[in-house]
Amino acid sequence: MTKKVAIIGSGNWGSAIAKIIGMNIAKNTTDFDQKAKMWVYEEMIDGQKLTEIINTKHENVKYLPGIKLPENIVAVPELDDVVSDADLLVFVLPHQFLPRLLNGIKDKIKKDAVAIHLIKGVFFIDGEMVPISSRIKDVLGIECCTLMGANVANEVAREEFCETTIGYETQEAGEIFFKLFNTKFFEVTIIQDVTGPEICGALKNIVALGSGFCDGLGYGGNTKAAIMRIGLKEMRGFAMMYSKTVVESTFLESCGVGDLITTCIGGRNRKCGEYFAKTGKAWDVIEKELLNGQKIQGVPCAKEIYEILSTKNLLAKFPLFHTIHRISVGELEPKEIINYKSVNN
Amino acid sequence: MTKKVAIIGSGNWGSAIAKIIGMNIAKNTTDFDQKAKMWVYEEMIDGQKLTEIINTKHENVKYLPGIKLPENIVAVPELDDVVSDADLLVFVLPHQFLPRLLNGIKDKIKKDAVAIHLIKGVFFIDGEMVPISSRIKDVLGIECCTLMGANVANEVAREEFCETTIGYETQEAGEIFFKLFNTKFFEVTIIQDVTGPEICGALKNIVALGSGFCDGLGYGGNTKAAIMRIGLKEMRGFAMMYSKTVVESTFLESCGVGDLITTCIGGRNRKCGEYFAKTGKAWDVIEKELLNGQKIQGVPCAKEIYEILSTKNLLAKFPLFHTIHRISVGELEPKEIINYKSVNN
Repeated sequence: MTKKVAIIGSGNWGSAIAKIIGMNIAKNTTDFDQKAKMWVYEEMIDGQKLTEIINTKHENVKYLPGIKLPENIVAVPELDDVVSDADLLVFVLPHQFLPRLLNGIKDKIKKDAVAIHLIKGVFFIDGEMVPISSRIKDVLGIECCTLMGANVANEVAREEFCETTIGYETQEAGEIFFKLFNTKFFEVTIIQDVTGPEICGALKNIVALGSGFCDGLGYGGNTKAAIMRIGLKEMRGFAMMYSKTVVESTFLESCGVGDLITTCIGGRNRKCGEYFAKTGKAWDVIEKELLNGQKIQGVPCAKEIYEILSTKNLLAKFPLFHTIHRISVGELEPKEIINYKSVNN
Repeated sequence: MTKKVAIIGSGNWGSAIAKIIGMNIAKNTTDFDQKAKMWVYEEMIDGQKLTEIINTKHENVKYLPGIKLPENIVAVPELDDVVSDADLLVFVLPHQFLPRLLNGIKDKIKKDAVAIHLIKGVFFIDGEMVPISSRIKDVLGIECCTLMGANVANEVAREEFCETTIGYETQEAGEIFFKLFNTKFFEVTIIQDVTGPEICGALKNIVALGSGFCDGLGYGGNTKAAIMRIGLKEMRGFAMMYSKTVVESTFLESCGVGDLITTCIGGRNRKCGEYFAKTGKAWDVIEKELLNGQKIQGVPCAKEIYEILSTKNLLAKFPLFHTIHRISVGELEPKEIINYKSVNN
């Protein structure tokens, strides 16, 4: 039996990944049903429904303009319709919308469906970190894989070469998602570690802030590489402490070192960290000036991690995370980043 | 008994590391003799011997101008005098001078001396790779550790924060060299893997060439991060195949991912790779135009590795190294780097 794919989300990243899914299912009639439904939160664009535009023009004119979507991607405004007959559920939407959405579909999905999510970030609930895969698995009662890597939606949509990592629990799930996502320009590696990749996707933003401080202070390449590497080591330490299913080799994958490099060289958290070190402006001012309304993820993430480590009396094991947090809340000068080992004693 | 330290080499890196050694032994009277001899290949500077200048001005005016060396570093022109009573031998000189030098001192050193080398690169002899530590160990009959990391001599000399990795065979050797080199601004991690770090130090230059091709072609951050990560994976694969003493976690250390990041962002191999992709000029022309007589290490290294892999019928396991070599010899266009998986079939 071929598997039906549902794409839950249709923003910039959702539309880019829908293009890959459409291309891949068209080439694989053995494994996949030849149409994939994409849930679109309905909105009006110049008097016309976005779903209608996507289904006639085959372009998400609002969130991924200029990129043709394959015709086998069908935009659907009713979520129940999208998920109810799907075998493979692809979650690709902002994480804040997920909890309510999951509650709404938990009784509608097939019992043997398998999920994957492409959502960067984690939840922090009552002082604990909750990976998004855990939340999906707990609410829906099905396996949930992760897809994480050094992937910028627009570059993927333009078919620029990059890599990504799929973390699975069962080999079978890993293999079917490999077939769904792997292309020549979007190179997938599958690993048996669901949680490691998603923790990387959240914690890298703390390290990117620190890299930005180095840039803002004019530190050289060795210093910045050191901060990135120590950051990667603390990411690994935190993730492996969090879950015994996390493996060391995950941090050498695209979701680990690959994404970290991209984020610390070019990302928005790095940029804001640089500006903070140079100007000392408040984060909300920096967001307004540099991000046009987008949020800096590294600052609240560093705070949440700080609180978890503080409660568990583990701050001494993560001196760089601790130092970046203290710099970000104004307790330390940015230049203290290189004294991360001694400054908290 | 305190240990006597001999520094064999006094170039840019040798002088920078002599500064650290001098500072550290002065602070540790329990473990170290309070003077360290530094072998200086004698030359005349404005009519005065370089050793005399170093011993009176306490500055290597030729190779590390502007940096004061501690007064406990004593420049000595006779190699035998430097090594004969030393307990710790620090090799830090260009690798082409090493074989003859080793033969000259093998009957002069203490039998229970321990060596460490800071020399980037490996030997290729009769189609086989020979790590520098192996050569030192074989000729001198003593343990040889390695010190490798994202370290630029002038930045270290100016006390800019960076990290490094010491690979040891016996814990005791690792610990004494930790004491000799670790400072607040030069942060040492010791690992039980001698060969992994030095193979990283050689192979990273191949990856840096590839990163340079990406820059020259105007590829985005995701593509470059992918090439760097795939390069790191092949470095790991090659090193772990070469020796069973190499461990996976080495590649997450400063000598692995740290040095790779610095080299692929700012190094000379990257710069030459970029220029090659943009201009198509011959490597010897590029060396003249960009490097002022210095050599590009990545091109001959890629060739040697290619020949080893070809002989052993293992090219298919290292498609990126293979592709970078073929681009560097003009068999493929630089843009084929992103087709590294398919272009060699």
